[in-house]
Amino acid sequence: MLETLSRWTLGEGPNAEYVVSSRVRLARNLKDYSFPHLLNREQAQEIIDEVQDITAQSFSTYQLREYDDLGLQVLIEKHLISLLLAEQKHNSALVIGDDDSASIMVNEEDHFRLQSIMPGLELRKGLYQVQHLDNLLEEHLEFAFSEQIGYLTACPTNVGTGLRASVMLHLPALVMTGQIGPVLSTLSKFGVVVRGLYGEGTEALGNLFQISNQITLGSEEEEIISNLELITNKIIEQEKLARKKLTHDALLRLEDRVGRALGTLTNARIINSAEAMKHLSDVRLGIDLGIISDIPAKAFNELLLLMQPAMLQALERKKLTAMERDIKRASVIREHLSKRMEGR
Amino acid sequence: MLETLSRWTLGEGPNAEYVVSSRVRLARNLKDYSFPHLLNREQAQEIIDEVQDITAQSFSTYQLREYDDLGLQVLIEKHLISLLLAEQKHNSALVIGDDDSASIMVNEEDHFRLQSIMPGLELRKGLYQVQHLDNLLEEHLEFAFSEQIGYLTACPTNVGTGLRASVMLHLPALVMTGQIGPVLSTLSKFGVVVRGLYGEGTEALGNLFQISNQITLGSEEEEIISNLELITNKIIEQEKLARKKLTHDALLRLEDRVGRALGTLTNARIINSAEAMKHLSDVRLGIDLGIISDIPAKAFNELLLLMQPAMLQALERKKLTAMERDIKRASVIREHLSKRMEGR
Repeated sequence: MLETLSRWTLGEGPNAEYVVSSRVRLARNLKDYSFPHLLNREQAQEIIDEVQDITAQSFSTYQLREYDDLGLQVLIEKHLISLLLAEQKHNSALVIGDDDSASIMVNEEDHFRLQSIMPGLELRKGLYQVQHLDNLLEEHLEFAFSEQIGYLTACPTNVGTGLRASVMLHLPALVMTGQIGPVLSTLSKFGVVVRGLYGEGTEALGNLFQISNQITLGSEEEEIISNLELITNKIIEQEKLARKKLTHDALLRLEDRVGRALGTLTNARIINSAEAMKHLSDVRLGIDLGIISDIPAKAFNELLLLMQPAMLQALERKKLTAMERDIKRASVIREHLSKRMEGR
Repeated sequence: MLETLSRWTLGEGPNAEYVVSSRVRLARNLKDYSFPHLLNREQAQEIIDEVQDITAQSFSTYQLREYDDLGLQVLIEKHLISLLLAEQKHNSALVIGDDDSASIMVNEEDHFRLQSIMPGLELRKGLYQVQHLDNLLEEHLEFAFSEQIGYLTACPTNVGTGLRASVMLHLPALVMTGQIGPVLSTLSKFGVVVRGLYGEGTEALGNLFQISNQITLGSEEEEIISNLELITNKIIEQEKLARKKLTHDALLRLEDRVGRALGTLTNARIINSAEAMKHLSDVRLGIDLGIISDIPAKAFNELLLLMQPAMLQALERKKLTAMERDIKRASVIREHLSKRMEGR
């Protein structure tokens, strides 16, 4: 599970020129247990065992205490687990399907975080996936639920539907033309928040922006998804327009930037994460605009994951210093791009 | 003559890893004419006609007044003529052999500047070439000569032998290790001066340094050449040592820089002269150190010439703006490198 790529990096999905991936998750808790932070080890294990039994037919359960720091970090980079789940590894588990697009974090902030992550704009499919999981669990378990306010959660911001949906957008033309600020600042009016690649508090690197719904209470699940889908489509339209409106001069400069980015990625011997992200974003835009034709777009998503620190160390099968990671990152990028360039 | 490469870019010659080219010139004046700045058009033409007659068997004579600014600039970039010769184009001419390594500027500062430019460290061959030309002219013409001080010249700094010899050195490792300052500052003690690629007052770009003898008076021609050769070999030794002594860490960083330089040169769409020079120097060092194996070293010399402003415009057969030149330069470099990479 550690050294393979995730499904969200492999496929391309609808609107893949603008949307790297879509994530949907439902927070659920058991009626008869305290919230995870109050559980002792035995109670936590009972919950893990129960969910393992229920899902055994098509899911595998991994006890996180069996992983070292590096292994946990890889799971975080794959967006399969959160930092919190890793920190609580003695009480927590990951339940995951064969293709890893659907999974359950057990004993994170809530007992269950049912989650789906798919390439492209696939919020609706994501919702069906987690609803399917939800139904499966609900056949056997009794959730903490109030007729008045809906599903109960450890943190009040998740109460109600327990649903959080997000999309990872690649918006280089809006950044380039300086329109990104105004576009993003209107989002909060629509109950949507913006974050970087690895969630809250992380910076928007490589022209990647994660937007997600802020409100879980009072809305229907379908409504939340529709709202986010609508807003995403609006942003896509604006990014599309910005790409189309690039002037001859801007295009020429862009071709130059894209060319140099590819030249650097295919030739550098030492590269840090921020620089690699920046160049990858340029290359991805070059692919989307037809400036680069011999690299498939998914190479971008694959490298987004492969170049992460823990992933690099998993590939090398040992701990690496920052400098060693920069060297390994450069070699992984070079090899991956040349493989992808031959592969077409 | 304009759109072809010069011989000094095509060959490689001895010590080509350190010496791009060697130049030797003799200043000569006719006894019976005023120095060029005092000549009228008829007198100037008489001199041109005489030398044309004498050299007709193996040299061609070009009246510079027949060239436009762009054509003259190309000749300057090829190191065949000086700015002064171009400025005096109504009175001046270039007499040049088939392979362009030997030539005569007629009516520059002196009546004749007999010159040789060859790839690598070839000062002695260069001296033979200009001495051969000198003998040929002296069979038919009477030079201004004093038994006491030697050949007379318009500027006193050339009096005596009239010999100026120079080598263009590529010294990236000395630059990288910070030793270049001390090395160059000792040169003046040995009667040697340092300049950039295009002579006096031009900056040392791309780790290229031109060194030449300062004194023409009182020394024998052979002595001047031996002295410069000796000093050049000393510098080469130090550059060699600096390259050998690069630490593992420095080598790794160098590989990165060389790789990035090549990546940029083979992918940029817009590139100015200074940036191109910098990257070309890195690529050349990469070739010399065996980091790059699929590009012949002469591609470096060829591009040094091809990327010059007038050369680019000659290739495009029209005047170009600065931006257009940067675009043309990028495309010439891309095409030339890819041709050279296939060519091996």
